[in-house]
Amino acid sequence: MADDKKLVTQITSMEDDFAQWYTDIVKKAELADYSSMKGCIVVRPYAYAIWENIQHIFDGMIKETGHENVAMPIFIPESLLQKEKDHVEGFAPEVAWVTYGGNEKLEERLCVRPTSETLFCEHYAHIVHSYRDLPKLYNQWCSVVRWEKTTRPFLRTREFWWQEGHTIHETEAEARKETLDILDLYEKLLTEYLCMPVIKGRKTDKEKFAGAEETYTVEAMMHDGKALQSGTSHYFGDGFAKAFSIQFADRNNKLCYPHQTSWGISTRLIGGIIMTHGDNSGLVLPPAIAPIQVVIVPVAMHKGGVLEKAAELEKRLKAAGIRAKLDASEQTPGWKYAEYEMKGVPIRLEIGPRDIENGSCVLVRRDNREKTVCALDSLETAIPEMLCEFGKAIYKKAKDNLENNIVEAHSLEEMKAAIEGKARFVKAMWCGDEECENIIKEQTGMPSRCIPFEQEHISDVCPVCGKPAKHMVVFGISY
Amino acid sequence: MADDKKLVTQITSMEDDFAQWYTDIVKKAELADYSSMKGCIVVRPYAYAIWENIQHIFDGMIKETGHENVAMPIFIPESLLQKEKDHVEGFAPEVAWVTYGGNEKLEERLCVRPTSETLFCEHYAHIVHSYRDLPKLYNQWCSVVRWEKTTRPFLRTREFWWQEGHTIHETEAEARKETLDILDLYEKLLTEYLCMPVIKGRKTDKEKFAGAEETYTVEAMMHDGKALQSGTSHYFGDGFAKAFSIQFADRNNKLCYPHQTSWGISTRLIGGIIMTHGDNSGLVLPPAIAPIQVVIVPVAMHKGGVLEKAAELEKRLKAAGIRAKLDASEQTPGWKYAEYEMKGVPIRLEIGPRDIENGSCVLVRRDNREKTVCALDSLETAIPEMLCEFGKAIYKKAKDNLENNIVEAHSLEEMKAAIEGKARFVKAMWCGDEECENIIKEQTGMPSRCIPFEQEHISDVCPVCGKPAKHMVVFGISY
Repeated sequence: MADDKKLVTQITSMEDDFAQWYTDIVKKAELADYSSMKGCIVVRPYAYAIWENIQHIFDGMIKETGHENVAMPIFIPESLLQKEKDHVEGFAPEVAWVTYGGNEKLEERLCVRPTSETLFCEHYAHIVHSYRDLPKLYNQWCSVVRWEKTTRPFLRTREFWWQEGHTIHETEAEARKETLDILDLYEKLLTEYLCMPVIKGRKTDKEKFAGAEETYTVEAMMHDGKALQSGTSHYFGDGFAKAFSIQFADRNNKLCYPHQTSWGISTRLIGGIIMTHGDNSGLVLPPAIAPIQVVIVPVAMHKGGVLEKAAELEKRLKAAGIRAKLDASEQTPGWKYAEYEMKGVPIRLEIGPRDIENGSCVLVRRDNREKTVCALDSLETAIPEMLCEFGKAIYKKAKDNLENNIVEAHSLEEMKAAIEGKARFVKAMWCGDEECENIIKEQTGMPSRCIPFEQEHISDVCPVCGKPAKHMVVFGISY
Repeated sequence: MADDKKLVTQITSMEDDFAQWYTDIVKKAELADYSSMKGCIVVRPYAYAIWENIQHIFDGMIKETGHENVAMPIFIPESLLQKEKDHVEGFAPEVAWVTYGGNEKLEERLCVRPTSETLFCEHYAHIVHSYRDLPKLYNQWCSVVRWEKTTRPFLRTREFWWQEGHTIHETEAEARKETLDILDLYEKLLTEYLCMPVIKGRKTDKEKFAGAEETYTVEAMMHDGKALQSGTSHYFGDGFAKAFSIQFADRNNKLCYPHQTSWGISTRLIGGIIMTHGDNSGLVLPPAIAPIQVVIVPVAMHKGGVLEKAAELEKRLKAAGIRAKLDASEQTPGWKYAEYEMKGVPIRLEIGPRDIENGSCVLVRRDNREKTVCALDSLETAIPEMLCEFGKAIYKKAKDNLENNIVEAHSLEEMKAAIEGKARFVKAMWCGDEECENIIKEQTGMPSRCIPFEQEHISDVCPVCGKPAKHMVVFGISY
């Protein structure tokens, strides 16, 4: 049994080599595969099931708040991409260009969408004429392409899967509210379902989205102290509307430009889940998005009645709305223990002849390996409770990691010292001048993460220029 | 009210110009929009909601039968596409080629996937080593690109959305069974959920998929007598496995090639729904996939209690699992009647002050405009029953259309005469020689649709060459 375990769990320890630990989990937990299409990944069934669960949760949230799904074309003609100046400057250098259709050279190059603001704007110009047509609250689930130089599965790949919401509103106030309402949904998704604590705030102008007036973000911290930008929501003002001539007759029959937003989360969240909750035995999955919440491992499987009882339990748990899976394969229990630990299944249910005699089974939690003997009668209540506790426990652990790795700094020297040899978040004041932000990035290696909504007063002045401080900013190295 | 109605319902009648009628519905029912990306469409919320309902139904069917979803890269390197000879010949002339990534010319061209056999095969070569790894029953929901010259919304566009299943099996028998099992699921989806009768059969070699040993199909008939190939399922044998060096150790530890299948349905089904059920007032939607099953139109809306009662009914119907929508907008009832007829909503529920007094409402069916007075107390049972009847009625109507437009022919002359001035299906015998199939296509304009599973004996000989007939074949002009 010990041997079996070793075979599956041979992964690099995260203390030895965090990057290799990550890569090992991606491979051993069967999350992704490489192909001859360099820089892209194959999302394997287990990872795709995680993504489907995330989609299901977030799609429910946005539909409940009146959003509708659409599908825009996969290509953007070059001339369309160029309509908004800042936007094209931000994206043109990193897009894939289609130049041939079949054997014919195209008259105009087409880029494979890196994001779809331009297509949504063109469509809005067609369908928005009156205030009665507003708001339009559209979203699409798709993949997009950005021609990255260095890639890592889920975190940065040339193709990734995401949702992109694009909304258009009668008033600035309404669009601003939408931007922040969505940020709240992202926070809810991350904290309540993915068990990932976040810092919520506004990006500095330097770090905002190409073409946006304001970008808001939820920033999470990984095990290694690095940041993962986990979801962003942009307020565009009427800049895109002007560039794309979207106008509507308002309540006084006056022609006006509408106000827009866009917002997205992506499959990089899967990378975030790995690096927030995983350990040296593999993945640890938040129950809300775990494809398997309870794996049933029969012990002494060939003894009379064991497999039958295990199958009965699987049926009962499924009927109770729990994602349960019985593994009745010929592998040893030890092999199965290691396999489902690698896959991060929150609870393992062990059942053998003696358990059946006693009318009980053993539940083992993936996060702390705590074993509980549980009466078979009460599984339908005990397991949901344990899953709930499990979610709270891994959230708390991640929250502790975040809190233990944020430090205050009052000077550039303190900022440098704070991250010496270890990535973490550094809170510091800032005058609001991009010059000072650049100096901090150059000298410490840390870009700004965001200007958190929850501000603290650390000092009166900017640590770089000594001028009066406007905001507290969180800095940190990111994925 | 009459004027309001006209505004919305000004569509070409299908008898005058079927193609224009189709285009008018696509526009007026807000199903699709054009963009500067020629040959592609914007799938608008109403059509996308139909597609989501189709996805939900079919995804449930395939998951119940053990299939798993994955995501493959959007691009295929040219060298990978070329690995299977027939396949590349079939697809290379109609793919979009990416030649630049950012500002750099790529060393190898990448095509935007027209279908993903090659990517699945490469992945299977990585993960299939033993009979224990088989079968793999994978599917992906995505969009694909084929560089079509002439396009029509939903029916033929350069980008379309689909599912592509790709499975790999230990034995030929298992793969053949999968191919046909999936065809049965397509038949179930079409007949039971989309209310579209189909002819199920095998494609001739001339019409089969590039690289397949056998292609099976479900063929539907549109209002105008033309065929819509609505779903295909392919058996590949071990041809792809050999081209991609996929081998596994069998139960005797001998290296073998596995057997494969692939199968797909696409957003062209939305075009099929329009052309099977629509009429001169617009769409008629099968209840199972209608985004709105019941629209509630309050009459004399501003009289006390009407809107409240209408809202209460909406809540009650939703609680009963019915997709109900209250339209409380300021438009007149007449405008709303026409609008939701255009959108094909199966049942309209009218409620006014007098109805409320009587404890009843009026239900109007979209297909035959039949009005029924219904007690408010019994809506939760009456509406599901009516939706069920509705589905049966539109299926029967489509089935009658199909049966009334199939004719038998015993000679080439009879075949030509059968479709003179009107597209329809022609049943005729065939010797099995591609030469004769070509002659029929040249002289009648009809390619073969399929060799139906339900064979009839029409005559002993092939109508072209006079040699002994092997099969009865259905011929027809198609979209």
